[in-house]
Amino acid sequence: MTTQDGCHYHINQGLIHGVPSRAKISPAERLAPGEQTLDTIVIGAGYAGLVASRNLALQGKQVLLLEARDRIGGRTFTSDIDGYGYEMGGNWIHWGQPHVYAEVSRYSMANELVSSQDYSYEEGNYCSTMIHDTKGQLTHQEEEHIGETAMSIFCDVDGQGGRRVVPFPHNSRFKANVFAKWDKVSCQDRLDQIKNKLSPLQLAFLTSTLMHISGANNEDVSVAEMLRWWALCDYRNSGITDYGLLYKLKCGQTGLAKAIFDEAVQLGNLQYKFSAPAASVRDEGSIVEVTTRAGQRFRAKTMISTIPLNVLSSIRFTPPLPAGKALAAQQGHVNKATKTHFEVKGTGLRSWSGVAYPSKGQMYLYGDGLTPAGDTHIIAFGPDPGLFAGKKIDKIKGALTHVKDAEIKRVQLIHHGSRVQAHEYELKHVQIFHDWNQDEFSKGTWAVYPPEFATKYLDDLQRPVGRIHFASADWAEGWRGFIDGAIEQGARAALAVSKELVTRRSVLKTSHL
Amino acid sequence: MTTQDGCHYHINQGLIHGVPSRAKISPAERLAPGEQTLDTIVIGAGYAGLVASRNLALQGKQVLLLEARDRIGGRTFTSDIDGYGYEMGGNWIHWGQPHVYAEVSRYSMANELVSSQDYSYEEGNYCSTMIHDTKGQLTHQEEEHIGETAMSIFCDVDGQGGRRVVPFPHNSRFKANVFAKWDKVSCQDRLDQIKNKLSPLQLAFLTSTLMHISGANNEDVSVAEMLRWWALCDYRNSGITDYGLLYKLKCGQTGLAKAIFDEAVQLGNLQYKFSAPAASVRDEGSIVEVTTRAGQRFRAKTMISTIPLNVLSSIRFTPPLPAGKALAAQQGHVNKATKTHFEVKGTGLRSWSGVAYPSKGQMYLYGDGLTPAGDTHIIAFGPDPGLFAGKKIDKIKGALTHVKDAEIKRVQLIHHGSRVQAHEYELKHVQIFHDWNQDEFSKGTWAVYPPEFATKYLDDLQRPVGRIHFASADWAEGWRGFIDGAIEQGARAALAVSKELVTRRSVLKTSHL
Repeated sequence: MTTQDGCHYHINQGLIHGVPSRAKISPAERLAPGEQTLDTIVIGAGYAGLVASRNLALQGKQVLLLEARDRIGGRTFTSDIDGYGYEMGGNWIHWGQPHVYAEVSRYSMANELVSSQDYSYEEGNYCSTMIHDTKGQLTHQEEEHIGETAMSIFCDVDGQGGRRVVPFPHNSRFKANVFAKWDKVSCQDRLDQIKNKLSPLQLAFLTSTLMHISGANNEDVSVAEMLRWWALCDYRNSGITDYGLLYKLKCGQTGLAKAIFDEAVQLGNLQYKFSAPAASVRDEGSIVEVTTRAGQRFRAKTMISTIPLNVLSSIRFTPPLPAGKALAAQQGHVNKATKTHFEVKGTGLRSWSGVAYPSKGQMYLYGDGLTPAGDTHIIAFGPDPGLFAGKKIDKIKGALTHVKDAEIKRVQLIHHGSRVQAHEYELKHVQIFHDWNQDEFSKGTWAVYPPEFATKYLDDLQRPVGRIHFASADWAEGWRGFIDGAIEQGARAALAVSKELVTRRSVLKTSHL
Repeated sequence: MTTQDGCHYHINQGLIHGVPSRAKISPAERLAPGEQTLDTIVIGAGYAGLVASRNLALQGKQVLLLEARDRIGGRTFTSDIDGYGYEMGGNWIHWGQPHVYAEVSRYSMANELVSSQDYSYEEGNYCSTMIHDTKGQLTHQEEEHIGETAMSIFCDVDGQGGRRVVPFPHNSRFKANVFAKWDKVSCQDRLDQIKNKLSPLQLAFLTSTLMHISGANNEDVSVAEMLRWWALCDYRNSGITDYGLLYKLKCGQTGLAKAIFDEAVQLGNLQYKFSAPAASVRDEGSIVEVTTRAGQRFRAKTMISTIPLNVLSSIRFTPPLPAGKALAAQQGHVNKATKTHFEVKGTGLRSWSGVAYPSKGQMYLYGDGLTPAGDTHIIAFGPDPGLFAGKKIDKIKGALTHVKDAEIKRVQLIHHGSRVQAHEYELKHVQIFHDWNQDEFSKGTWAVYPPEFATKYLDDLQRPVGRIHFASADWAEGWRGFIDGAIEQGARAALAVSKELVTRRSVLKTSHL
C-alpha cells in the first residue's frame, strides 16, 4: 500500500509522490456503532500513541486511537521499494535504549537488528571530506579519533567529562541548578570557549557533528541538552555512533510499530480512525470531547495527546492550554534536519562515509546497506530545511556529488599512502526523505531544545491538564526526540490514565483485601 | 517485618538470624475461597514471577503467585537496618539495561538512582591491594587503567575487541557457530593464551576480576559467556563498572519489586501464597496441577515456572522434564559467589576500594554508601562459598581486615608520593550476606555458565513444555543472571501465556473485524 507521505525519484521513473509502506492502515477505521463514551481517546499513532493504546487495551479499557495521517508511526516509518526498507524518519535504536529495546524483546525481534556500518569492503573504505571547499580523505580510524578528541573537549565542561552536570541522563530533575546554568549556554558559546584547543579540521568536524545531532544552527541549541545526549551515549563519541547511527531493524521501524498496533488490535477493544486530524479538544470536567476537522465528535473519560510540540498550537483546546505549555508550543523546538536516501550503483560506497562543511545540503553521509539489486544505500543528513524546496532533484543530488565528485577528482592523487581507484558511482535512485519540516503534522524532526527551553518548559510540557495527558518524545525524560523517548512517554501516560480510571475488577472477597 | 532469610552480626548484639525487610509479605496469603481453575499459576515471586504475574493480572487473567519464601524478590531483597538499605542479593542496575529500566521508568523512580561510587573524600581515596601477600596501593585511575588494559587484551579474541564474536549481545542465536567455538574455551584457557602479554599485577587483577564477575574458578567458566557480558558492557572495562557495580536504588531493590507486586495486587485478580514451596507439578494436558510441600493443590490452564536453574531438579514434574532441561538442571550453573556488607566507623573508607588475590574470602571490596549514622558501608565479593560456613565472625571480618590491616601496616611507607595517615577503621557492624549457596531455594547466586553449557542447553532451557513456560534470569537472552534478564523472561512468558489463553474480549461487531 502507498502512504501519501514521502516521495522518491528514480532515474527512469522521475519523481513519484507517496511511497509504498506497510505503515498505511486499511481499512482506515474500526469504530463501534452508535454513541459511546470511551475510557480514553489517544490522539496520534506514533510510538507514544501506539504504546499508550496497546497498554490500555491490554487492561481491557475501551480505547479510540485517532490519527491525522493514513498510517501508523508518526515521525517514523519505513518505505519498502524494490525489496529494501528505507527509514523515512527515525531509524536507529540500541539495546541500551531501555524503552524501545523492551519492545524489541517483547516481540522477540532481537534477530531483526543489523548494523548500518560495514567497513569490510576494500574499495571506498574511507571518509571523504570537503571542508571549506578543500577535499581530503581520512581513514575511519582517523575520522573516529577526530570526533572523540573534539567532542570530549566540547563536553568536558566540569573536568569530569560532563558527568558532574549530567550524572543521571534519564533524570531531568537531578542537580537542576547545575543543569540550568549550562542550559543558558548555546553550543556556539561553548564552541567559542574551546575553539583554540582544536585544529581547524577538528573544529570543522565538531561544528558539523553538533549540527548533525541537532539539525539546527549551533547558536540555537542548548549545550546542556547536548550534554544530556552525551551522557545518554555513555559520555563517549563512539557511543554517539553506537546509540544514534548504528543498529537498525531489518523489518524496519514499521515492523516494530506494526507489532504493537497488531497486538492492540487483536485484543478486540481498540477502535481507531486514520486520516482524521483532530481540530479541537474540549475538557468538560468529567468528559473530554475531541472534534475532528471533518466534524466528527468522540467522547471519553480521559485523553492522551501525543501531538508533537511544534504542532500543538494548531489544535484548539477548551479551556486553553496553561501558559507554560502554550508558550512552549509557540516557541517550538529547533530541529529542522533533512535526511536523504540515495541508491548508488554497486558496492563501491558500502564502507564509505563523507563529511561536508559547509555543505550543499547534507553534511554527513554514510553507507547504510546493500539493496537486493546489489547497490549501495547511502543515507545523508544535513541541517538545511530548504534542501527539498521545490523538490529540485539536481540540487538534492548535489548534496552527495559535492562530496563524491571531490573524491573522483582526487583519483590521481596519492593520499594516505594508497591510490584511490577511479569509479563512476552512478546515482541510480534518489529517494527523497519525507519533508518533515513542511509536514503540518510534524513541523520538524526529532526535538532539540534551544537554550533555556528545558529549564523553562519541561515541567509544563510533561504535566497533565485536567483529564488530558500529554505524551511525546518531544518532552521525554531520557531519550528526548528519540523512539525510545516516545515509548517511555506512551507507557507513562497509559499508567497514569489507568490509575485515573480506577477500575476495580476484584473477584475476591477475603478479609485481606 | 523480619524475613527468615539472611543474618547479621553487630558488635553489641552478636549474631542475629533473619533481617528486617519490606520484602516480607504479610498476611502471607490471599486466596479466593472454594475450588477454582485459574488462568495461570506462577511459581516464584522474584522479578521474573512478579513481572509475569503483573502483566497477566493487568490483562484481567486470574493469576496465582506461589512463593517458597516468606517474601518477594527471589535472589534480590533489601534489608533495612538503622535506616540504611543493604542489598542482600542483586544490587546494581543501569539505564542501559532495557527491561529493568523500563520498570524504573514505569514507576517514575528515576530519582531513586544513586551512585555507589564516591571518590570525593580525600582520606582513603585509593585502592589497597594485597596481591600474593604483598601490600600495595594504587590510585583509582591506575586501578581502572590496569583493568581496562587487561580486560581488553583478554576479550580481544577476534582482533575487534570481541565485536565479531558477540556483535549483538541480546541475541544468543546470532553467529551461533562463532559463539560455539569460544564457548568450548574456559576463562583459564584464555588466560593461559594471553598471560605473557600481561605484567604480574595485570594478571592478578584480571584473574581476580574474572572470578569476581563469575563467582567461580576460571577453569569452570566459558569465555564466550564472558565475552557476552563484555559486549553487554559496551566492550569496555569501564562499562563493567557502569553496568555492574555503580547505580543502585535508594529505595532498594525491594522498593522496585514492591512497586510491581503492589500494582498487581491492586488490580484485584491476583491471588498469592507465600511460604508455600512447590513440591510437584503435573501437566494433565489441558490443566496443570501444582502441589505444595504442605499438600495443597492448585489447578490452572497454564503455568509459569521461575524456579532457578540450580533448584529445578528438586521439583517433581509429571511427565518428567525433557532430557535437555533435566540434564541442564542436574549440571547447574557454577556461580558460588559470596557477598558481605561491613559497616565501618566514620567516612575514612567511603572513597576506598580493595583487591586481594588470593583472598581470605572476599576479593573485591568497595565503599558503597554512608549510613545515617555517618559510617561507611563496605560491600565485598569473593568466590569462596565456604566463607560463611559455621558463620564464624572472625573469619568473615578477616576478609576485610586482610586488606585493611595491610593498609594500616603500610602507614609508615611513602607510596605514590603521598603519606597514608594512620587510622583505625573500626568494624561496627558486620552484616552477613544471605548464604545463597546453601539456600535450598537458590543454590547459587547469579547464573554463570561453564564451557559448552549455553551451546548445549540454552535452547532447551528457554523452551516451554506443554502448558508450562519457564522464565528465569538464569537463561535470559541478554543480561543472563541479572535483574534485567529476570524481567525480560517474565515479560516474555506472560506474553506467551496470554497468547495461549486466547481470550477474546471484543466488543466490536463491525465488518472490519
